[in-house]
Amino acid sequence: MIKVGIVGGTGYTGVELVRLLLRHPGVTLEVITSRSEAGKDVSELFPSLRGEVELKFSQPSVEAYQNCDLVFFATPNTTAMTQAEELLQAGIKIIDLAADFRIKDVKIWEQWYGATHACPALIEEAVYGLPELNREAIRSARLVANPGCHPISVILAVLPLLANSMIDPRSIIADCKSGVSGAGRKADLGLAFCEVTESVKAYAVSGHRHLPEIREILRILNADVELVFTPHLVPMVRGIHATVYADALQSGDLVQTLYQDFYRDEPFVDVMPSGSHPETRSVRGANVCQIAVHYLEQSNKFVVLSVEDNLVKGAAGQAIQNMNLMFGLDEAMGLENPGMIP
Amino acid sequence: MIKVGIVGGTGYTGVELVRLLLRHPGVTLEVITSRSEAGKDVSELFPSLRGEVELKFSQPSVEAYQNCDLVFFATPNTTAMTQAEELLQAGIKIIDLAADFRIKDVKIWEQWYGATHACPALIEEAVYGLPELNREAIRSARLVANPGCHPISVILAVLPLLANSMIDPRSIIADCKSGVSGAGRKADLGLAFCEVTESVKAYAVSGHRHLPEIREILRILNADVELVFTPHLVPMVRGIHATVYADALQSGDLVQTLYQDFYRDEPFVDVMPSGSHPETRSVRGANVCQIAVHYLEQSNKFVVLSVEDNLVKGAAGQAIQNMNLMFGLDEAMGLENPGMIP
Amino acid sequence: MIKVGIVGGTGYTGVELVRLLLRHPGVTLEVITSRSEAGKDVSELFPSLRGEVELKFSQPSVEAYQNCDLVFFATPNTTAMTQAEELLQAGIKIIDLAADFRIKDVKIWEQWYGATHACPALIEEAVYGLPELNREAIRSARLVANPGCHPISVILAVLPLLANSMIDPRSIIADCKSGVSGAGRKADLGLAFCEVTESVKAYAVSGHRHLPEIREILRILNADVELVFTPHLVPMVRGIHATVYADALQSGDLVQTLYQDFYRDEPFVDVMPSGSHPETRSVRGANVCQIAVHYLEQSNKFVVLSVEDNLVKGAAGQAIQNMNLMFGLDEAMGLENPGMIP
Amino acid sequence: MIKVGIVGGTGYTGVELVRLLLRHPGVTLEVITSRSEAGKDVSELFPSLRGEVELKFSQPSVEAYQNCDLVFFATPNTTAMTQAEELLQAGIKIIDLAADFRIKDVKIWEQWYGATHACPALIEEAVYGLPELNREAIRSARLVANPGCHPISVILAVLPLLANSMIDPRSIIADCKSGVSGAGRKADLGLAFCEVTESVKAYAVSGHRHLPEIREILRILNADVELVFTPHLVPMVRGIHATVYADALQSGDLVQTLYQDFYRDEPFVDVMPSGSHPETRSVRGANVCQIAVHYLEQSNKFVVLSVEDNLVKGAAGQAIQNMNLMFGLDEAMGLENPGMIP
Repeated sequence: MIKVGIVGGTGYTGVELVRLLLRHPGVTLEVITSRSEAGKDVSELFPSLRGEVELKFSQPSVEAYQNCDLVFFATPNTTAMTQAEELLQAGIKIIDLAADFRIKDVKIWEQWYGATHACPALIEEAVYGLPELNREAIRSARLVANPGCHPISVILAVLPLLANSMIDPRSIIADCKSGVSGAGRKADLGLAFCEVTESVKAYAVSGHRHLPEIREILRILNADVELVFTPHLVPMVRGIHATVYADALQSGDLVQTLYQDFYRDEPFVDVMPSGSHPETRSVRGANVCQIAVHYLEQSNKFVVLSVEDNLVKGAAGQAIQNMNLMFGLDEAMGLENPGMIP
Repeated sequence: MIKVGIVGGTGYTGVELVRLLLRHPGVTLEVITSRSEAGKDVSELFPSLRGEVELKFSQPSVEAYQNCDLVFFATPNTTAMTQAEELLQAGIKIIDLAADFRIKDVKIWEQWYGATHACPALIEEAVYGLPELNREAIRSARLVANPGCHPISVILAVLPLLANSMIDPRSIIADCKSGVSGAGRKADLGLAFCEVTESVKAYAVSGHRHLPEIREILRILNADVELVFTPHLVPMVRGIHATVYADALQSGDLVQTLYQDFYRDEPFVDVMPSGSHPETRSVRGANVCQIAVHYLEQSNKFVVLSVEDNLVKGAAGQAIQNMNLMFGLDEAMGLENPGMIP
Repeated sequence: MIKVGIVGGTGYTGVELVRLLLRHPGVTLEVITSRSEAGKDVSELFPSLRGEVELKFSQPSVEAYQNCDLVFFATPNTTAMTQAEELLQAGIKIIDLAADFRIKDVKIWEQWYGATHACPALIEEAVYGLPELNREAIRSARLVANPGCHPISVILAVLPLLANSMIDPRSIIADCKSGVSGAGRKADLGLAFCEVTESVKAYAVSGHRHLPEIREILRILNADVELVFTPHLVPMVRGIHATVYADALQSGDLVQTLYQDFYRDEPFVDVMPSGSHPETRSVRGANVCQIAVHYLEQSNKFVVLSVEDNLVKGAAGQAIQNMNLMFGLDEAMGLENPGMIP
Repeated sequence: MIKVGIVGGTGYTGVELVRLLLRHPGVTLEVITSRSEAGKDVSELFPSLRGEVELKFSQPSVEAYQNCDLVFFATPNTTAMTQAEELLQAGIKIIDLAADFRIKDVKIWEQWYGATHACPALIEEAVYGLPELNREAIRSARLVANPGCHPISVILAVLPLLANSMIDPRSIIADCKSGVSGAGRKADLGLAFCEVTESVKAYAVSGHRHLPEIREILRILNADVELVFTPHLVPMVRGIHATVYADALQSGDLVQTLYQDFYRDEPFVDVMPSGSHPETRSVRGANVCQIAVHYLEQSNKFVVLSVEDNLVKGAAGQAIQNMNLMFGLDEAMGLENPGMIP
């Protein structure tokens, strides 16, 4: 059994990790830390876990994790980078669900995250944890940077087109609609029920932190990539719907087959039948990205629709998929639950 | 492996049965029938099940179930009663998730359901499938009447008080708040998003079909029981919150201990700490009823709060718990998932 | 034109006052104060008011209100009581939408609000601003205590029964379902979208501040009143649905006529036809309380259903109705808008 | 007083017309027709109108409208075209809120609406009822085609750019997020609460009826316009958020001023400050389109955000604005209410 710990277990990503890890047959959950809730029963904060987990929140420290083979950082940005080195030296692998190690260009990272990177030496080693792109590297990684929730949905949507030079790399527009849980569990007027329900708005149109992340990854495939990324806040808890537009360089007649072939062996990417309109609810609670590709002849554009649960394939589930790879387990272990509808 | 079938698999109870049975290690799902969708892939109707289930909907018939050890009726009321006899004769056990066999007094049943009962001979044999009340009878039953969603939440809330003669049996008021999924999956203006969201209303105040069901069961414990039952429709998908009031005959000082002792060995009834206010979201997707009991000294009343997911502990999960008992499996098998929050 | 000011205009009650007063033909809005937002355009905080109001938030002070004939306190509890005396001496009338002057028994007030009352001398003079009970007193009042949102819905529901000695005064149970806006506009994890949507819970079962308020008012009609009051949080923005139960002392045969007669001349209480189930959405944005009364013969109980928009008839609209009375205007002026559905 | 009638008053557009017309000082509502509800009190179907409107639904017929100066068709598509000629001959003006007269090219109309046009002779005369484009023509029109809800938000968003040749006319992408009320009031499983809440999906990606409408109107300004239009269903009742992308032909430095100048005299288009992110809730219930324009230098694209209430500026309010113009009233009469938040 792999022994794992969770740093910062009081957020939505943290509790989702607990929910999924509790049913994972290859893992024992050793420790959950929280500076603010140390000493409190985990199930007191999350009554959904009553009878499921006996742990209390611990103070975060290297000692707390000493029995762990792996630690998940479900913390705010800029936390993992201050502790990663010490943990790795103690032989503990790391999956950071925040953004500290996602961007290779440290200057760009520092510009977008408004901080000096505390651990630039490890950035190069860190593997961007998207198995559909980096499976082999993840298997042997000590430090995995779990991707952002929007980037996963956008990258998976556009990957087959870009890898096959089907689109103008400078024409990509990603219009994303995201549930509120992506903003985290916190006291914030902007996230209050009465402020977000029955409304839609765009945010960070001039530039969101997920933009440089998507751009850097896509430029691995084509250095000319430029994109517009517009996230919107939608009144629902879970789910991201990415609608990705790009100018076609080739006819789209065979694009359905292209997608099906591209993702044929992927356990967690589901190419829908031609003409489909995926719904975020279909993947609620499931570690799946469902994708439908459309070609509009009149305007000669591709429109790709992709949906994921931002807390599962967009965060905790993706992290467990990475863990499975890092420890030689079946990649799908503990991640087999279908979506919960209605 | 137990072989099971689902009659009427296109409703919310049906798809929830599929979701739960797919992960049940002691069961194979042999057949799902639907008159209207026969021939269609189950996963076409429910894209959340893509890659999870290969079945197509079949035409309902005894032949369709001939390989089954058990059949779940996830049909509208008055369907199971027309087929039960034939299936039982073929050696197939039955759990009816509708109301056909819930009420022993056939005259009362016929009055509330507006139909002539097609199979009165089996009513006596049918076991009311509430393990907290009827565990032993369920183990040996051929035909189980799965309780209504409201009755489960109300009965579990009030059972310890009534069994211990703590309350005036004529003073019970059950004020229930229910999510919309309880009304089923159908085209109905009254269930349209724009008609039910951002609103609350009571319904069937003068008498709801779950009233005679609750009354009959509670009168097993005390023949003098009379109650008021008022269901309310709340703008959420899953969840029932029962708020049950009753006049105290004895002081409530020890009522917390009473509840804890009463439900100590129950795998799926969770008595919350004194002073708690359970939330329906804590049990979303889980086969649990969480209960908190309050005693109000000034008015000398008990107020019991109980929450369940109407599709799980209130329907499909409850049915699987009954199935586990009927086939000698671990009662909790396949039902271990915690609630999904947020 | 009556000149009015709003103290504490950044909350939901404040912005609702602005929305309604802007269209009131007998009023000019002179000043809106806010300690935290002073200097900012009101329409910057509330873009729904762009082009509608030119005011900036001012620092609160007596000088700020010196041109006003009336000031609304849309502040947290314990604010109005520190300023009321000075304003009244300056000839400015007051409507307090908070709780400072609602309860006549200062000891009970201090016990429930956890503070020493700063202005006990004015409590006796203050008029409880429920026109259906106190119309004449409101007309001549200098200081009106606008009722709490739950108390309005509960008192109006039960008033005809109590006034006509139809019920056991010790048997009243008020089970209320409230939208989230009643908790105010603030950064609070408990009010976050992801914490309250898709869930129902009771709160303050052991005692809510609106309990002593309702009790004191109802005891004016019958000194023996005792009641249970259980508020529940429901995932919607606006609306309160009160379900009030009481033991009948007389037959309920004529209760429909009784209610219709009792409220015949009330402009803002609407007795629905016999057998109705009012919905909160029908009164969204409107200054109306819709009521339906049911008599359950078998249990000999009355069940009264009443709905209001907690921000209108439950707060801002009620306050304007009181203002109209205080200044001799048509009681309905500025309050004629029907509910907004869907 | 202008005498008006509403044909088909049982839908969301119909009841919104009633809500707004009841407070309109220059109008009396003479008749509301409905084939299915004829004889029933309007306020029985819509309890929000109790005490506000005494009308019953009438059978639709020319006689029913004979006292009217104007009739609004709030009917499904293909109704108005069968009655328009007769009404116009009787001297009754018409505003059709459906699509019968929106598209000048009858072949395109017939292709997208799957019907033979019953009244092609009137198409040329009909005026597309967007005052920001056609104010003078509307003033003298007998027959106004009220625009579609999406087209209004998209056209107003892109009009200043297109009119000033700021963008490549073949590069327009309109990604729209719409509330559920846009789909109308009907019993339809796809609109059920449990099917649409907590989810987002695109629909009609390969072609939606609003696409040819937008295209035809925009081509009046530039014959080369081509566009992609992708509507998405969002779990809220009211509101459309259009996010419009286009390739810049000129620098966007002065685009904010351009928009402010372009819409300076428009009573119902509100250009937000530079850098804004409008929210649909800010215009809930109000006849306003709020617009924010962004220029992204790195990708040389404009991103325009526009929000409206699809039932007001997107339908009923827009129709009343047109009526005001047709009858020489103040264009804003009856439309002054600000948005209702929260």
